[in-house]
Amino acid sequence: MIQTNLFKGIIAYPITPFDAQEKVDIPLFKTLTERLVQSGAHGIAPLGSTGVLPYLTEEEKEAVTTAAIQQVAKRIPVLVGVSHLTTAGAIRHARFAEKAGADAVMILPMSYWKLTEDEIFHHYEKIASNISLPIMAYNNPATGGIDMSPALLKRLLQIPNITMVKESTGDIQRMFTLRKELGEEVAFYNGSNPLALAAFTAGARGWCTAAYNLIPGLNNRLYAAFSRQDMAAARDVFYQQLELLQFIVAKGLPVAIQAGLKIQGIESGYLRSPLQPLSADDHQKLEEILGKLN
Amino acid sequence: MIQTNLFKGIIAYPITPFDAQEKVDIPLFKTLTERLVQSGAHGIAPLGSTGVLPYLTEEEKEAVTTAAIQQVAKRIPVLVGVSHLTTAGAIRHARFAEKAGADAVMILPMSYWKLTEDEIFHHYEKIASNISLPIMAYNNPATGGIDMSPALLKRLLQIPNITMVKESTGDIQRMFTLRKELGEEVAFYNGSNPLALAAFTAGARGWCTAAYNLIPGLNNRLYAAFSRQDMAAARDVFYQQLELLQFIVAKGLPVAIQAGLKIQGIESGYLRSPLQPLSADDHQKLEEILGKLN
Amino acid sequence: MIQTNLFKGIIAYPITPFDAQEKVDIPLFKTLTERLVQSGAHGIAPLGSTGVLPYLTEEEKEAVTTAAIQQVAKRIPVLVGVSHLTTAGAIRHARFAEKAGADAVMILPMSYWKLTEDEIFHHYEKIASNISLPIMAYNNPATGGIDMSPALLKRLLQIPNITMVKESTGDIQRMFTLRKELGEEVAFYNGSNPLALAAFTAGARGWCTAAYNLIPGLNNRLYAAFSRQDMAAARDVFYQQLELLQFIVAKGLPVAIQAGLKIQGIESGYLRSPLQPLSADDHQKLEEILGKLN
Amino acid sequence: MIQTNLFKGIIAYPITPFDAQEKVDIPLFKTLTERLVQSGAHGIAPLGSTGVLPYLTEEEKEAVTTAAIQQVAKRIPVLVGVSHLTTAGAIRHARFAEKAGADAVMILPMSYWKLTEDEIFHHYEKIASNISLPIMAYNNPATGGIDMSPALLKRLLQIPNITMVKESTGDIQRMFTLRKELGEEVAFYNGSNPLALAAFTAGARGWCTAAYNLIPGLNNRLYAAFSRQDMAAARDVFYQQLELLQFIVAKGLPVAIQAGLKIQGIESGYLRSPLQPLSADDHQKLEEILGKLN
Repeated sequence: MIQTNLFKGIIAYPITPFDAQEKVDIPLFKTLTERLVQSGAHGIAPLGSTGVLPYLTEEEKEAVTTAAIQQVAKRIPVLVGVSHLTTAGAIRHARFAEKAGADAVMILPMSYWKLTEDEIFHHYEKIASNISLPIMAYNNPATGGIDMSPALLKRLLQIPNITMVKESTGDIQRMFTLRKELGEEVAFYNGSNPLALAAFTAGARGWCTAAYNLIPGLNNRLYAAFSRQDMAAARDVFYQQLELLQFIVAKGLPVAIQAGLKIQGIESGYLRSPLQPLSADDHQKLEEILGKLN
Repeated sequence: MIQTNLFKGIIAYPITPFDAQEKVDIPLFKTLTERLVQSGAHGIAPLGSTGVLPYLTEEEKEAVTTAAIQQVAKRIPVLVGVSHLTTAGAIRHARFAEKAGADAVMILPMSYWKLTEDEIFHHYEKIASNISLPIMAYNNPATGGIDMSPALLKRLLQIPNITMVKESTGDIQRMFTLRKELGEEVAFYNGSNPLALAAFTAGARGWCTAAYNLIPGLNNRLYAAFSRQDMAAARDVFYQQLELLQFIVAKGLPVAIQAGLKIQGIESGYLRSPLQPLSADDHQKLEEILGKLN
Repeated sequence: MIQTNLFKGIIAYPITPFDAQEKVDIPLFKTLTERLVQSGAHGIAPLGSTGVLPYLTEEEKEAVTTAAIQQVAKRIPVLVGVSHLTTAGAIRHARFAEKAGADAVMILPMSYWKLTEDEIFHHYEKIASNISLPIMAYNNPATGGIDMSPALLKRLLQIPNITMVKESTGDIQRMFTLRKELGEEVAFYNGSNPLALAAFTAGARGWCTAAYNLIPGLNNRLYAAFSRQDMAAARDVFYQQLELLQFIVAKGLPVAIQAGLKIQGIESGYLRSPLQPLSADDHQKLEEILGKLN
Repeated sequence: MIQTNLFKGIIAYPITPFDAQEKVDIPLFKTLTERLVQSGAHGIAPLGSTGVLPYLTEEEKEAVTTAAIQQVAKRIPVLVGVSHLTTAGAIRHARFAEKAGADAVMILPMSYWKLTEDEIFHHYEKIASNISLPIMAYNNPATGGIDMSPALLKRLLQIPNITMVKESTGDIQRMFTLRKELGEEVAFYNGSNPLALAAFTAGARGWCTAAYNLIPGLNNRLYAAFSRQDMAAARDVFYQQLELLQFIVAKGLPVAIQAGLKIQGIESGYLRSPLQPLSADDHQKLEEILGKLN
């Protein structure tokens, strides 16, 4: 039977670092992933949007998948992003992830042409029937270009191994509606950083975040305060980190996290074009924001 | 010195009822207002959007203002809506409300032509300089047609008697940003019903709501659970009332409240055209929603 | 039988000027209206959005209505704006306009609360049954806050004296769809200045414009070139005036026209608050744009 | 020197057909391309959005590129889509297209993460410096997820071999502004089917369209009528085809064209998942639309 309660708390998203020639740097990826585990993350999610999944070749995606699973070594569960524009491409990667030992896969319905609800359902169904891992259906119109309604997400949950939903529209009303539609038992996760406090209030089981690369302590304290129902403390630590959460979302997670790590003295490699380093002004702004947090 | 802590908790918005000839029914207005006071509201706000302020003549607005203040009779504070498309019109009504004994006035920058930030500031400043009551600046682009940024709201708070902000965009991220911009001391209020739970989490001092006409008990329990930091109870009672909150916002507050009161066996009069009674389908839907709550 | 072909070509919209005390200046209104007639307008439309209809009292609206009709004196047809938030208010003004000798009235479904399609239909039907003048249904979500679909506009045309449609969404695709839905015979008018060239191409019978206050010669030449099917000339004169058309829409017609007239040495009075004169920067920009056109 | 006037009139976009196993069907692609040439197209553009470029592997893109160039055999110019999420990927394909004999390449800034203007400029600049072919910069936020402003497009035209702009926002005001910003000499192309008539009026040098697969005669007649300045005929033939143009855009070009060809008795192969055949209802609707055109 499929385990649906694997993920809760804070699921951390590592970046995929590149070397100066824009090749994937696997050793550095392992180092950065290790930091996340040691900081106390409850789960690790390689090859998310933060991990620039769509910018990688098939071979690179396989290498990162393997590296993440080996490095984490079952200490905490690993959720591998396997989204692909084509159904066949997603199946190929999902099967690889399963063999490599992933605990679950995350799938965003990437779009070039907008997909109908039936096309989306068919896409998930075909992938799901090719693996036995639990699947997290991921809604993020800002990157994927498709907005899945609560009703469609509910329909997807009829597919046996689709057991989790990640909501990243950034609209708390959507999350309330989703929870109302799905019922109390279904695990849903927040993927919108500036919603962190409100999403836990709404009943989210976890927070999927790249911010954990930069401020694991503040993220941990927010979750802890909420868990012990100390709302004043939760609100206080949330407002402390809000500016950073808004900044990394506004500037794009891979670019902002890569810069933020460098500012903190942590090697974070290079980006792959067309992504370019944060502009000088934004870099200074990020230094100021991080400076206030230390 | 201006009192800024007058309003907290639940500020209830009465409808303005009409008779069969579409004339304002002042006795019925008093009866409906009395119900809100006796249900335990912490404040009363006549002539809000729910009270169809913009559909009334000057004489009618004065009559409703007077009736509300007399009926409440200082038991709880009264916040009178005095918004008007012209600056002169808003000043006239605000001065009347002050003389009549209002505790504060609420002002939405109504628009036909979009106003610049300077025009909005000038509008508020001129009104504020004509009265000594505290003013609640009210942002509601869906009805007023103007969206005031957190930065503009912060600027408005430099005007001495503008001491409160009501945010009704329905976007919790906006509310988080507003709170961050204004600082912890400034009183801000939530005007978006489906945000009720999240807004208190964000630090809102009060909830401005027309739902109190229909479900005062559930509204009271939500505020009580949040106040004692019982988040599980708060979440539970919030999800119980969410469908109703979404319904009344989707259908328009004056129309939905008038119908809901009738369904509950409470005389609620008629609407003024162009507003028409809820359609038969929506009426039945509302009966079902209210039925589940009793 | 209702005359449906009254209006074609360029229908000019006068501003409503105020004196230094913000009172309506009727003599100046007549002078400005006379200029439009003498410049060759094919129709005059007082109390449109340009004429700040919603900012006026009932008495002021009646005075402007009478003044326009007297001044034009049947030389060209007069289309009076009678939109009002309430149905009763619109009926009152429409009946006044009819008695005063208007050739047609224009009605925008103004909204505070969003109206359902049935409420909008009912609003128009009640007004229409109270007058025998032809009515132009006017769609302008940017000012009125309601967007009437082509299907609803088609439905409105079933009401006998609603014979004209004015489309101001600014979306040429909407206009194409509208023309396709309504058929070739129905007169539709363009109310979006930057669409002028494309709207005539789409089959619009006329252009409703406040720009005629500032550049009647260029407006006339565009219409003339299009009428003789000289597309190169039409395109040329359109691109000459495009920057001005975009500017006055961006800054708001009453404010921009009032400033533009002053720049051209024509007395244009004052605005009514909350509207304020164009900012210094925008004033200079407008001087530059107008300078290039002379 | 780079030739900038290669493309004018109607540039036809072939679909990329698949076999029953979802493999690219090159022979069928050649047959379909030949039809477009023989129908009188002024240019051919393989691997556009219609050609589902992003759903193909590197090898497939190369095979389609070669097939198109071979089949057209210099009778009319060929414009090859070489967009790719990564800069390196776009360079690789652009160089291949140049060697294979393409006349020009078309590049859309595909996004997963939104790109800054500097990232987009850098992306184009690096690709442009790797080839000597003329480049058409292509703006289509609905598929690519990035909206390039007229100012950015103007900046891109500073790169020597970027000589053409294709605008597909569907907003004629944007096209007017673009033409005003770029000046009369710069070739811009319309990529929004329902804008066809208005775009030629605005000065577009050509119409990039997949509709040519289904209604080449009507497309030809529209261009001919416009070219001889017979606006009544142009409008008439435009409104004849508008419903089809709107339908194929609404349903997605690859899916709608594949179905439409089948309805017309032309072999069009299969789609690649997640794309699925038009639903039964939509298929019938398309039959009706096409039926009225024959």
